[in-house]
Amino acid sequence: MKTDVSNLPLPTIRRFPIYLRRIQDCIAREEAFISGAILADVLGLDHVVVRKDLAMTGVVGTPRLGFPTKELAAAITKALGWDSPTQAALVGVGHLGGALLGHKGFLDHNLEISLAFDANPDLVGTQQHGVTILPVADLETVVRRLHIILAILTVPNAAAQTCADKLVAGGVRGIWNFTGVSLNVPATVKVQHEDLVSGLAVLSHMIATNPPPDAP
Amino acid sequence: MKTDVSNLPLPTIRRFPIYLRRIQDCIAREEAFISGAILADVLGLDHVVVRKDLAMTGVVGTPRLGFPTKELAAAITKALGWDSPTQAALVGVGHLGGALLGHKGFLDHNLEISLAFDANPDLVGTQQHGVTILPVADLETVVRRLHIILAILTVPNAAAQTCADKLVAGGVRGIWNFTGVSLNVPATVKVQHEDLVSGLAVLSHMIATNPPPDAP
Repeated sequence: MKTDVSNLPLPTIRRFPIYLRRIQDCIAREEAFISGAILADVLGLDHVVVRKDLAMTGVVGTPRLGFPTKELAAAITKALGWDSPTQAALVGVGHLGGALLGHKGFLDHNLEISLAFDANPDLVGTQQHGVTILPVADLETVVRRLHIILAILTVPNAAAQTCADKLVAGGVRGIWNFTGVSLNVPATVKVQHEDLVSGLAVLSHMIATNPPPDAP
Repeated sequence: MKTDVSNLPLPTIRRFPIYLRRIQDCIAREEAFISGAILADVLGLDHVVVRKDLAMTGVVGTPRLGFPTKELAAAITKALGWDSPTQAALVGVGHLGGALLGHKGFLDHNLEISLAFDANPDLVGTQQHGVTILPVADLETVVRRLHIILAILTVPNAAAQTCADKLVAGGVRGIWNFTGVSLNVPATVKVQHEDLVSGLAVLSHMIATNPPPDAP
């Protein structure tokens, strides 16, 4: 069965990695089938939500047995674009950039940070986690020559737009933006903005406006 | 004017820090007023969205002039709970935990990571970014004794729920969860989940399913 996965809703895509982890656990335990209801219960999600999400993979379940685990894992992996390896360039090797560079978990998703760039001449030429740091002045040229399509942006806010412009000029198609800046890029380039301060805002607002349980 | 900010929509709260940065830029340039339309244009947001968001602060604008910058900044800061300092505990001083510990930007939002915990005996007792690392075995006791209400969880997935249980037992009211685990906590404890792999999923899915501009 062939299904169009090019227009999946964002919340579904965000849940796919969570399902995938559980399904891979099942495969490791040599379980051939998984039921959507059990998956929903284990993850504390709504049964209807999980059923709709799994239907979008195009994999057909069997009554009483559930979904074939290997087929389901393959379909989700493909929908996420994790079935072929992606080389990414990291721009800005500060605290956060260095942490992402050392994060082995991305390899599980076929993402390898194979290039790193920084503006600091003291860092350029040194190695971190096995990757040699290149000068940010070469960003556009190197990205274009190596056909890099994904970049991770962890530079200070003041440098964010300039670096994004170079990445776009070099042919990058996706930018994972960890800066606090809303980037201006052409519509053909996708930006996923991870603004940590927005996450902090949500949490601190909830704490500030919800009295502790024993308050009057 | 008094406004109830305890039930702000999440998207509004996520935009508040973005507005706040721009308003503080205006204050630095000694601009007494800012118009909602200009704020929307600068940030590339919809005028109606920005107008509704700003109305929720309770600050009243003046026709042709806009909103008083200092009053608006104060109202947003208060709504976010950033008007009083918060001490946070970091649990798990790996790559990401260390990066967050060294991130000076949180201080702008009155958040100080004053405590750090790790299970690794080689790390316990050492200092990182001026904070002495404590044994995770003492987590519940120390958090309770110092009345810590916010915790940042950056431990491996396998340790996430156990550490969350200790934090809850110690009286924490908010957990900023950077692990891949959906935590089970009482309804009185707020969890903000920053699952980096979900962000990567969204981006890689968009790249995988959108052909490059010059493809047929």
